[in-house]
Amino acid sequence: MTRTTYGDNLVVTDRGGVVENTHEIHAAVTDADGRLLFYVGNPHRITLIRSAAKPMQALAVVETGGADQSSFDSVDLALMCASHSSEERHVQRARQMLDKVGATEDDLRCGGQPSITPQVTEGWWRDGVTPTAVYNCCSGKHAGMLAGAKALGAPLTDYHVQDHPIQQRVKRAVEEVANLAPDEIIWGIDGCNMPAPAYPLTALSQSYALFAKASSDLARDAATTERERWMGRIYDAMARHPEQVGGDGRFCTILMEAFEGRLIGKLGADACYAIGVKESEDTRRLGAKGALGLAVKVGDGSYSILYAVLAHLLEQLGIGSPGEREALRAFHELKMVNSMGVQTGTVNFQYKLHSVL
Amino acid sequence: MTRTTYGDNLVVTDRGGVVENTHEIHAAVTDADGRLLFYVGNPHRITLIRSAAKPMQALAVVETGGADQSSFDSVDLALMCASHSSEERHVQRARQMLDKVGATEDDLRCGGQPSITPQVTEGWWRDGVTPTAVYNCCSGKHAGMLAGAKALGAPLTDYHVQDHPIQQRVKRAVEEVANLAPDEIIWGIDGCNMPAPAYPLTALSQSYALFAKASSDLARDAATTERERWMGRIYDAMARHPEQVGGDGRFCTILMEAFEGRLIGKLGADACYAIGVKESEDTRRLGAKGALGLAVKVGDGSYSILYAVLAHLLEQLGIGSPGEREALRAFHELKMVNSMGVQTGTVNFQYKLHSVL
Repeated sequence: MTRTTYGDNLVVTDRGGVVENTHEIHAAVTDADGRLLFYVGNPHRITLIRSAAKPMQALAVVETGGADQSSFDSVDLALMCASHSSEERHVQRARQMLDKVGATEDDLRCGGQPSITPQVTEGWWRDGVTPTAVYNCCSGKHAGMLAGAKALGAPLTDYHVQDHPIQQRVKRAVEEVANLAPDEIIWGIDGCNMPAPAYPLTALSQSYALFAKASSDLARDAATTERERWMGRIYDAMARHPEQVGGDGRFCTILMEAFEGRLIGKLGADACYAIGVKESEDTRRLGAKGALGLAVKVGDGSYSILYAVLAHLLEQLGIGSPGEREALRAFHELKMVNSMGVQTGTVNFQYKLHSVL
Repeated sequence: MTRTTYGDNLVVTDRGGVVENTHEIHAAVTDADGRLLFYVGNPHRITLIRSAAKPMQALAVVETGGADQSSFDSVDLALMCASHSSEERHVQRARQMLDKVGATEDDLRCGGQPSITPQVTEGWWRDGVTPTAVYNCCSGKHAGMLAGAKALGAPLTDYHVQDHPIQQRVKRAVEEVANLAPDEIIWGIDGCNMPAPAYPLTALSQSYALFAKASSDLARDAATTERERWMGRIYDAMARHPEQVGGDGRFCTILMEAFEGRLIGKLGADACYAIGVKESEDTRRLGAKGALGLAVKVGDGSYSILYAVLAHLLEQLGIGSPGEREALRAFHELKMVNSMGVQTGTVNFQYKLHSVL
């Protein structure tokens, strides 16, 4: 575990002009061919992409035929890609997915946990709700895995273990979409107990650009493979149902709502993020052949810094209009106020966005 | 806001052997004369010490005569130095302090906020409690400031503003205990709306060593000044009532309980910490003339990393017995487990503790 220090990749918060905290940023901007266009820090940083892997995990499931066999619609597909806030609509939908699979909550191999959104957890405490596995922010993904396991004729138990047939499918899908050899990807165990891949941010960026490309190709009937059609449908599911992918007030949801289908974005735990942007004047201006991807990791895992950086990078790159980015203002400015509402400091984006071309 | 990169001052967490997060550590170990004995990263880092300033703030209050005039006992003194968990005992005690001052909750200039301990907040939500100012983790400090303002014959309103007489007293006490000139300390606004000083970790370490020295001197009737007697009483209040300084399960409380008076420790927000250790065989072996201080800042503000580092440094320095440090094991090992209780990774202390002598 060695490490290179870059030095020009910091976000610094201050209080009264004094440095309070420093955060290292790593980011890669590529196109769907994997060409690096811009970067911050180390764009090749091997990164545990955590829940940013969900579109690839969903792809492995739909390619088994499991989504069709379980009559999943696009809302179900979106929930498979979600780190949802465990709102009523998410929990209900996950239960419906289990019904459609012919499985029960007891088949889920994730545990219960507090909601990502404190107000939701607060509601459970008020109402005496104990969050079980179906409340887990990954319950849609897990329900999807059960559909995949069933379609493969594999046992529903232990669908989360690396050598289960559905996880072997996931492994191949992740490798192929990232365009990496098996030995270029390292696997850990995720917070929801499923295998979690680690690979360079450049490859994550490329993967998301490929989803964006697939959606454009699907729309103009130019998708060339079954895989590309499925990738387009997964992109479209996320873009059309952003409220399923995150929840009220969440960055993923607000970002995708603001851009109305022109991009998808997904959070991974410990402050990793990936965005896929459909081909547009913006992506061409930035040097992309077609669609564009952006992958970011905050070195220490700070979420508020991650969201500020994403909003800042979108502005620096000129992706979308000022009006579209306006929805992200609260994340971008990250007002540092105290218990009396007094502003105590600011966030300073001191990193350099390097242009490669 | 420039920054030097050290590189040998990291804590790294991994998942399945892959680096997940990296955290920069800065630490200074000094004696009461301010001699630097050991360090990690930049021991001179200008650091917003936040609530680690509370013993010095309490000192300014007691020196007005306000603590005696309000009949504060040692439990009250401990609460003045606390970032308490807003448990029933803390809130009740803060109310009693206000009564003794002849003030009310309306006089407090801190706002309400969730408890530092989620389970306490959970209880409020269950019971329909709305946390008002007296629930603020700093309510003891604020009640103390009211006692100080009253003793000075100053208005109770705006006791939190930098030019109020009690804050001017705080400013001088912080400067004098840190042995720094006014222009060597920069002031911001804290989370609870009071002035927050920033200065080098070395000076914070020295300040805490001075509190430890004062307690020893007081015990053997060798305190030479009124200030030293008060500093000894503040140390003793914290050491004897650790449950007031933090709360159930909190690092400060467990640390001070385990060391039974031989040290005090206090958290500052955004992962700053200071410890003062009374003269002992350990402090002499480490090269201290008498008492010893330790000040730590995690560059990105991560609390769990801070506590792990503190436990690790105490072990590396050999402060206390293995039995005393055993109480810190859960903080030290920082088990990284997921929602199913599976261990997903480890914490790796990659920093170098440099010896100066």
